[in-house]
This record gives sequence, C-alpha cells and structure tokens, in this order.
Amino acid sequence: MNILNTQDTNFKDEFAKLLMRGKMDINSVEMRVKELLEDVKQQGVEALKEHIKRFDKWEAKSFEDFKISANELKEAYENLEPSLKEALNIAYKRIYAFHSKQKPKTWLDFEENGSILGQIIQPVQRAGLYIPGGKAAYPSSLLMNAIPALVAGVKEIVVCTPTPNNEPNHLLLAAMHLCQVKEVYKVGGASAIALLAYGVEDCKKVDVISGPGNIYVATAKKLVFGEVNIDMIAGPSEIGILAQNYTNAKYLAWDLLSQAEHDEMASSILITTNKDLAQVVKTQIYEILPTMQREKIARASIDERGAIIVAKDLEEAIFLMNEIAPEHLELLVENPLEVLPKIKNAGAIFIGENTPEPIGDYIAGPNHTLPTGGSAKFFSPLNVEHFMKKSSLISFSKQAILELGESCSVLAHSEGLEAHKNSVLTRLNKI
Amino acid sequence: MNILNTQDTNFKDEFAKLLMRGKMDINSVEMRVKELLEDVKQQGVEALKEHIKRFDKWEAKSFEDFKISANELKEAYENLEPSLKEALNIAYKRIYAFHSKQKPKTWLDFEENGSILGQIIQPVQRAGLYIPGGKAAYPSSLLMNAIPALVAGVKEIVVCTPTPNNEPNHLLLAAMHLCQVKEVYKVGGASAIALLAYGVEDCKKVDVISGPGNIYVATAKKLVFGEVNIDMIAGPSEIGILAQNYTNAKYLAWDLLSQAEHDEMASSILITTNKDLAQVVKTQIYEILPTMQREKIARASIDERGAIIVAKDLEEAIFLMNEIAPEHLELLVENPLEVLPKIKNAGAIFIGENTPEPIGDYIAGPNHTLPTGGSAKFFSPLNVEHFMKKSSLISFSKQAILELGESCSVLAHSEGLEAHKNSVLTRLNKI
Repeated sequence: MNILNTQDTNFKDEFAKLLMRGKMDINSVEMRVKELLEDVKQQGVEALKEHIKRFDKWEAKSFEDFKISANELKEAYENLEPSLKEALNIAYKRIYAFHSKQKPKTWLDFEENGSILGQIIQPVQRAGLYIPGGKAAYPSSLLMNAIPALVAGVKEIVVCTPTPNNEPNHLLLAAMHLCQVKEVYKVGGASAIALLAYGVEDCKKVDVISGPGNIYVATAKKLVFGEVNIDMIAGPSEIGILAQNYTNAKYLAWDLLSQAEHDEMASSILITTNKDLAQVVKTQIYEILPTMQREKIARASIDERGAIIVAKDLEEAIFLMNEIAPEHLELLVENPLEVLPKIKNAGAIFIGENTPEPIGDYIAGPNHTLPTGGSAKFFSPLNVEHFMKKSSLISFSKQAILELGESCSVLAHSEGLEAHKNSVLTRLNKI
Repeated sequence: MNILNTQDTNFKDEFAKLLMRGKMDINSVEMRVKELLEDVKQQGVEALKEHIKRFDKWEAKSFEDFKISANELKEAYENLEPSLKEALNIAYKRIYAFHSKQKPKTWLDFEENGSILGQIIQPVQRAGLYIPGGKAAYPSSLLMNAIPALVAGVKEIVVCTPTPNNEPNHLLLAAMHLCQVKEVYKVGGASAIALLAYGVEDCKKVDVISGPGNIYVATAKKLVFGEVNIDMIAGPSEIGILAQNYTNAKYLAWDLLSQAEHDEMASSILITTNKDLAQVVKTQIYEILPTMQREKIARASIDERGAIIVAKDLEEAIFLMNEIAPEHLELLVENPLEVLPKIKNAGAIFIGENTPEPIGDYIAGPNHTLPTGGSAKFFSPLNVEHFMKKSSLISFSKQAILELGESCSVLAHSEGLEAHKNSVLTRLNKI
C-alpha cells in the first residue's frame, strides 16, 4: 500500500490508476455469457440442468428440482440461533423503515382551465433477485434486495441463488422466510439471469432484476437490459475515507480492512491532509493484517488496490474524492456540515467516527447495494424506485384544448407531422 | 389493418405478434456499432471526421468544425417565425412547470438515539443529449430532453445532432437557444454516443446520455451503459386506444394515424368492446390515408403493424392493454376513474376525447420520451430523476452505535466477515 503525495511528480499517473479501479473487462466473458443466455432461451430447462451440473456439480431431474419450498425456508428460519434471529429482525425492521420513507407517491396537478396533469407511480408486477450462494452467501444481500421490492408493493418476488453441490445456505433461506419470499430457484450465474429475463416453464419472465454477482452475472445483466430493467452493473466493493487530523487511526485501519476482506479486487483508499496520520494508519493496517481470518484476500487487496493519499489541503482532498466517486465514503472531518455540500459523488456517506462503514452493510437502514467503480457519478443506491415505474397522466378539458390546441398544431406543422396537427385540429372543429 | 376478435381461434397467435412489435434485432448491427464506438475511443477526432464524411457527407478539418456556436443558436432563434416562437415558448414553460413538480428533494430523518439517516439527491455534473437531425429533426425532442436536465440542475448540457451535408436544422438550433444549451456538436449516430460516453478533445465524457435515435443509436446506448447511465432503450413509436361505445370515430382515426405517420415500424392498436366502432374506425382510417402527406409511411405502418381488437367486455380489453403496455394509451371510456386504477402498464395515459395524443408530444407538459415495445412494464417516461442521482447518508451517535453495534457484529460474524465485525467492536471498545 503506497502513500502517495499529491505533490509527487508521478501522482497524476498513480491517481489515474485509482480511477480505473474496478473496471471489468466484460469483453473477455461476453461471448461465453451470450452462449449461456441463448442456451437457456432456446433450450429452457434442459439448458439449466446442464449448466447446473457443470457449474454447481449436482443433477436436477426436472424443473421442480430447482425449487426450494416455503417449508424449507420456514424451517431454516425457525432453526436460527436466537441472537442471530433477533439481529436479523432488527435489521429487517430498520431497513424496512428507511425504505418506506423513500417510497414516492402518485401525484396530480389541476389547472384552472380544467386540465389535469400527473405522474402515476406503481410497482412492477414481478421482480427477480439474484443472490450469490455457496460460501459467499450473504443473508444481508437478500434483505437489501427483497425489502425495497416489498416496500414498493411488488406482488411477485422471485429469488435465484446457486447451491453448489445442492447445498443451500441456511442463513440465506432464513432471510428469505423473513422477507416473505415464496418463489426460489437453485440456479446461479448467467443461467439464473436468463431464467429471470426470459422465463422457463412456470417461472415467468420478470420485469426487473437486481442483486450482486461476479463478472458473469454483471455481464448477463447488461446483456438482458432492455428485455427487463436492472438495478445497476456493479463491480468490486470499495471504500474512500476522507480524514483530517483528530481521527482514531485504529478505526480507519479496521474500516479500510473491512472492504479489503471482501475481495482481492476491492479498493480501500484513504485521503488525508495529515501525513503523520497516513503513516500511522498504514502501520496499523500491516499490524492487523496477520491477525485476520481473511488475511490473504485482504492483503492482496491492500497491496494491489489500496492507497493512501496525502493532500495539501481539505479542498484538494474533497476534489480528489469526488473524482474517485467511491461506493462508500467515510467523512472524518472536523466540520462535516461544511464538507457535506461539497461531496458530489458517493454511493453512501458515513459521517463521524461512530459510523463505521459496516453499520451500513447490515443494520443502519439504507441499502448496501451501491454504485461502484466511479459510477456513483450517475447511479444511485438500490432503492424502492428500482422496483416501481412511472406513467404520465394527461386529461384535457374542452377549454384546455381550445386554449392550447392552436400552439400545438403550429409545432406539429413545423415538424412536418400533419396527422399530429389534424388530430388536434379535429377537436377544434377546424377540419 | 385486421379487425381481430378475441373469440377468434387464431387470436392468441395474432396477439402474440402484437406483443413482439418493436423488438429490435440489436444483434444484427451490434458488431458494426462496436467497431464505430471502438474507433472513436481509440482514434478520437480522426475517427469522428471519417465517420461524418462517410455518413453525413461533409468534411470537418478539426474538432472545432464540429461545434455550433452560441451565436448561431441565438440567430436561429431570433429568425423564428413569430407564431412558432410563441408556440415554442408556451411549450417550454409548460414542460418546465411539469418537470419542476417532479423534482425530488434531499431528506433527512432523525432518531431519538441521535442517529441521522437520509437520502441526498443531486444532479449529475454533465449530461449528453442525442437529438436526431436532418429531415426528422424535432425541436420538441430537444425541449423534452433538455428541460428535465435543466430542472435537475445539470451544469453542463451537451447536445449531439447529425447535420447531413453540414446543414443544421434551424428549428433545432432555435430550440437549443431557448433551452440555454451552449455546447453542441454536429455528430450523429453511434459516433455521437461514443463522443459523449468516452469524450474527445475538449468534450469531456458525460455522466448520462438521453435521447431518441435509430437502431444504431439504441444499440450504442446499450453498449456504453455502465460507462455512463442512459435514459432507456427506445424503439418505434406506438399508441394503444381503449374505447367503449360513445367515442367519436374520426378522433380515433386521426390519433391512430398520428402514430402511424412517424415510422413504418410504428404500431397503432385500438381495443374496443364495440364491433361497430371497430368497423367505422377502420373505414375512417382508409378514407383519410390517401389525403395524408405522409401516406406511404402511415399506410405501411397501419397495414403491417396496426390492429383493431374487439374484446368481449371492458375487463378483457383492459387485461389485453396491460399486456401490450403501450407507449401512449388513450382511455376513451365512460368512467375513466373506474378504469384508471386498473391500468398497470403505459408510458403516458391520455384521458377523454379532448386529450389527443399529440397534445402530449408538444405542449401538455409531461415528457414525450416514453418507454416503447412493452417496456412500460418496467421503464418510466424520461424525467428529472434521469439527470440526478442519490447518495445515502448515515451519521451515528455514540448512543446509536452502542445500541446497534452488537447486532451488527452478530450479522457480520454470521457472514464470516471478521474485519466488518471488528470495525464495529472497536467502537464499542471490545477489541
């Protein structure tokens, strides 16, 4: 993990590398993913059976074998260890409460001429959640994807998750029960995205697909975008910390390592105005690393993709952080209310030393599915609106069309669209 | 244009064809579009010069030649014929007013334990609008794309539009002036999407690309999705009309033809419970067709992609229309307030015989960029939020982390993420 100084001659090049973090080479897997998708589209259940045998090492005899029953989910939930059941319930309630506040409402606006304009907002009919399985099965991901769909009012919530060797993760099943999920398929990877996007047997195609996944899943989601809507294209996890002087270095070290332990491709970046803090945090990180259960992953991430940047002042630090546009941003600054309006790009912002990033992964309430790789410049955290869609509403009175019809016909005429013009003029009895 | 009856034996097959309307065969152009994109990415201005020479038949000497100056825009506006200038201004004001009501606000929520949770909503920095040029240059498209970006607060709005033979459409330039657009490039097709997504010379990459276009533009937008955000992937225009008895058949004929005149690929679909109305509308359409300036286009669309469906009752008609999920839906029913809650899928809904669809294309206020081809099941009309993005905000007090830290650590432990757990436990002084 290098300590970079913005005054260094090579800083610009080093910083450019950070901006390229998390770029996925979708081209490298696109052909294979396309084949998998096409295979499921054409062959249906036979393709799914073959893919699962190949990737997850178990044999399904029929489409029924891919299903997990509501009873299995319930049983998994009931067998949860009490402290875990309680923690999951607290998380569920807090995530549900936050997302409820996010839910937009249909509105209408009346004009004196008798016209009504409005925006109707309603849930999609059917949502597909992709949740990674096996060793990296995270019940928190299930909560974070299912709850916004529930709050949106989606009637049909479908989950796909891979079960290597046909062994489902029981925590994940328990979380599904908690979220009232009733339709679950043991299918993973690009095959699952195909199942959700095209439909196979009695699993109809969905309207929206959300959820995390590796490069195959991300590529498949991009390829089916347009057939269905998707939440975003997400890459490896990342954290940016903006720190001034007073900060507890041990906190920073753990927070940076908490991203690093996710994935060798994860990025942990500290930008500080204090070069002593930079050095102390680096020392702490390398002291903690050998004690970590996931040392190997975390060390690779820290060594290859971690960075500490010493900025000349707070303005410069903020500028650089906005360029990075991190998925998670911790603000450990003296006057957060002065800094906050200057933060343009971040998936989620964590303020102060009592707000470690993992609190947002599990229990604070906001979603942990966040834009990565700089896409916080234009993508948003997963939210209720990903599972809803809008329709415009226009209702004109006779008076309204009399007032505005003429101008409308002038514009239609200017574009050479005479039937548009006449459709209006016929209401004015002019044709 | 066939009149289909839902009781016909072949109805299911015929209806399935309608559901496939507007499916674009992106595969057929994907390789060529990829080459164009890669070309601009690698060769920059040289590629743009070569593409424009090839497709638009004029030669640019440098990147400067692609720019249209603010003076040219102003001049075009000042030379507008007065009635057109007035109509454009009325449209601008109404579209601006509607979109202003759409603009979401940042919110914060306080808990008694001292924690703050919230959702920050702010504009993207830079938006790229693609507006088709040449003969099909529509100033209304410029208004409908630029105004939501303006309302969102986007600081840098860039427009790309092709100018075949280097002849810009002056109406389009005038509309750009009205919308305070200052950065315009005479570049069209996939090359324009590449310019916006990757940046060339002093045109930096944008965050969001919106706007209509042909299959090359739609494919290019899909390919750069993830590098930037996009509004949607749009296909040919379409209208669905749901009509009961009382309706004026001439109105319906003109409204159906107003979509048909857009494009041979456009779809105009009437669903009615009255088989006499079906027959009268059909007769009207074929009476009007020979009088139309755009007869050839409209006739091809009506013959090949138009349909009139006679449903057995209103319930069935509504069900079929929800399956179709039309871009534009006219509701010409006796009790629109009873029908409205049953409409699940439509880009924009037009109620009553004083609300012809073209009024929404130009002047009503809501956006005319709408989801096509059934994607109203999951996509929304272009709106202010396409040009904004959210960040979550979390600020925990000491009391809040003491209350929730333990549950958070239980969940982190259950997922095997020890650094996540320790990042929280260190705040509780437990490690």
